[in-house]
Amino acid sequence: MKSQFNYFMPTRILFGPGKLKKLATTPFLPGKKALIVTSSGPSVKKYGYLDRVIEYLKQNNVSSVTFDKILPNPILDHVMEGAQAAKDNQCDFVVGLGGGSSIDSAKSIAVMAKNPGNYWDYVYGGTGKGKPVTGGALPIVAITTTAGTGTEADPWTVITNPQTNEKIGFGNDYTFPVLSIVDPELMVTVPPKFTAFQGMDAFFHSVEGYLATVSQPASDQYALEAVTLITKYLPVAVADGSNLEARTALAWANTEAGMVESLSSCISHHSLEHALSAYHPGLPHGAGLVLLSIAYFSFMAGKSPARFANLAKAMGKNVIDLPQEQQPFAFIAALKKLIAAIGLQDLKLSDYGVKKEEAPLLARNAMSAMGGLFAVDPYKLSPEEVTGIFEACLE
Amino acid sequence: MKSQFNYFMPTRILFGPGKLKKLATTPFLPGKKALIVTSSGPSVKKYGYLDRVIEYLKQNNVSSVTFDKILPNPILDHVMEGAQAAKDNQCDFVVGLGGGSSIDSAKSIAVMAKNPGNYWDYVYGGTGKGKPVTGGALPIVAITTTAGTGTEADPWTVITNPQTNEKIGFGNDYTFPVLSIVDPELMVTVPPKFTAFQGMDAFFHSVEGYLATVSQPASDQYALEAVTLITKYLPVAVADGSNLEARTALAWANTEAGMVESLSSCISHHSLEHALSAYHPGLPHGAGLVLLSIAYFSFMAGKSPARFANLAKAMGKNVIDLPQEQQPFAFIAALKKLIAAIGLQDLKLSDYGVKKEEAPLLARNAMSAMGGLFAVDPYKLSPEEVTGIFEACLE
Ligand SMILES: [Zn+2]
Ligand SMILES: [Zn+2]
Repeated sequence: MKSQFNYFMPTRILFGPGKLKKLATTPFLPGKKALIVTSSGPSVKKYGYLDRVIEYLKQNNVSSVTFDKILPNPILDHVMEGAQAAKDNQCDFVVGLGGGSSIDSAKSIAVMAKNPGNYWDYVYGGTGKGKPVTGGALPIVAITTTAGTGTEADPWTVITNPQTNEKIGFGNDYTFPVLSIVDPELMVTVPPKFTAFQGMDAFFHSVEGYLATVSQPASDQYALEAVTLITKYLPVAVADGSNLEARTALAWANTEAGMVESLSSCISHHSLEHALSAYHPGLPHGAGLVLLSIAYFSFMAGKSPARFANLAKAMGKNVIDLPQEQQPFAFIAALKKLIAAIGLQDLKLSDYGVKKEEAPLLARNAMSAMGGLFAVDPYKLSPEEVTGIFEACLE
Repeated sequence: MKSQFNYFMPTRILFGPGKLKKLATTPFLPGKKALIVTSSGPSVKKYGYLDRVIEYLKQNNVSSVTFDKILPNPILDHVMEGAQAAKDNQCDFVVGLGGGSSIDSAKSIAVMAKNPGNYWDYVYGGTGKGKPVTGGALPIVAITTTAGTGTEADPWTVITNPQTNEKIGFGNDYTFPVLSIVDPELMVTVPPKFTAFQGMDAFFHSVEGYLATVSQPASDQYALEAVTLITKYLPVAVADGSNLEARTALAWANTEAGMVESLSSCISHHSLEHALSAYHPGLPHGAGLVLLSIAYFSFMAGKSPARFANLAKAMGKNVIDLPQEQQPFAFIAALKKLIAAIGLQDLKLSDYGVKKEEAPLLARNAMSAMGGLFAVDPYKLSPEEVTGIFEACLE
């Protein structure tokens, strides 16, 4: 057992099918006027989620203004525009409604509603200026309609700066949601492909948090349970999106994965993916992770095998009967099987326009924009090794 | 998996051998003047813990006043006296230093420093008046020197009212410590008998939280890991108190057990024990729990066997090879073995002056003063059954 660690995961989480309607009665709303930050896409409107949120808030004596411009890869300009909307309308808290992009944007907007200048002044990493956030942030309520980023249970927000091709994570104690509602009923409408991508994002948050040198006992438990639940239920939900038992298990796995990100950290697998999707915004984050994963984790399992056998066990592999040196690679076999079980076995990076000659550029971007994650890798990667992993994915 | 639950465990925890000295540098102290609430016993002074806390606070620009009257079963009068001391000295936060009694008292003092009237006006259950706590509480910092109550990771405080012979738990969102320091080095001086009692208290918090109808996935994980760690390491620490690996594992198990109490609940086993120690203040809480446990859990395993096999597994029992109807009772066998491994197999309630004819009185007290816990029992006990369990322990 690791003997030195800090534990902090202050978000209050209301979990379960039907929980959205608690918004109308919960005593835990942090203000009287909300900026609802949500996607530019049609689904929160089409399925009535936005109308329900507005109505439930009203029943709880909270008025609201909606900012509905958020893109799948949320951008800096919309953070600044949303913050201005919060100020113009004198909102005293922010509600992020939707997938990771909406909730992440809500977090960044909450910061910029209380701090001067540009958001990129506060971002650390890449061209961010890393200024301290002295003004705090508006309180954040997260209502998640997907099971992917875990952002409802962590302080992290990932925003893209299109001018510099940087996609950088940011967060602090102020950007933990004070209240999150995780209602698996809102997730039954997610189409199979996105269910698969988002589920694999949560899967890798768990795997990476388990492998990171900064893992701790609580994050280890959440990570292994999430890996088990996703392995079992993601193929079920991809095959039948209306299966509420599977959606509920995946919603909890995703929340656990968020807690893992709060208590431990992602590793450089995520840095590599952020570089890919910064240059190829059409590539979904989860798809990028899947496409990098076999090459990345095969390399890591060779260099730092210690914890891979437990991951394989959590995926249901009987590793005890294998020779010790093969046990870590049982995880790779299980991962390939999971990718096939959710129908992603034929996915290719070249389908998204990524070319082999980009590998050195992508490696440089990954190590600059999200360099911090390399510091918690179980094995320290060189720039050549990172380039090599990209190349292996583009063969 | 349970599909409906609320998660909230906002305490920040600094964990690890040597962590006490972080008090001198942590940016997370919630004020500038502390009331240090600690035991009337000699150990926090003898081992220098109190001096170190005062000095570290000073290095962090915090002045302090010490209130050192807390008894092993902390009493109402000292809550009121401590709250007066906090007000008289204009303290803006409270530090609980010691075992559960000191930290629990710090919580109750923090409430009464900000609310009028008597503490028993706010207590719910028994003769408590159950008034709402509208004034909040001073922020609470917990520094635990034992591994027993888990109070550093939960909102609960247990105070005895000697005039009514009631020992009642109390807590709300204000009584979660904002910061807890769990330094296993402070625990190496706990004598074997108290190590055993306190470790079994944490053990039963975990077991009960796992059996309670209000358990949730996160509390289940913490509970089962705590049960595993205590089964393995408590005999080690009882045999050799200086074993820092065992102390560290037990300190974490105890913190996990506290989280279990935050996310789930104790069941009526604790109500029965509180009745015992309200009438027999010389009986240590952990001893009372151990003395009730075989009769109590044997009865429960017969009435509601569902989760007992998992507890037996967490204690290292190979339950798979047993006939299904025997699996729950593997927990009872493992519990007896653990009690013997820590040298408590010859403990008797009669040694503490408890008489068989008290059983009906004790049952009435348990169901009145701590009646709430019976509501989350996996099986609903009748007054006759509670009397029967007391009698079985006094045979
Ligand atoms: Zn991700
Ligand atoms: Zn207890």
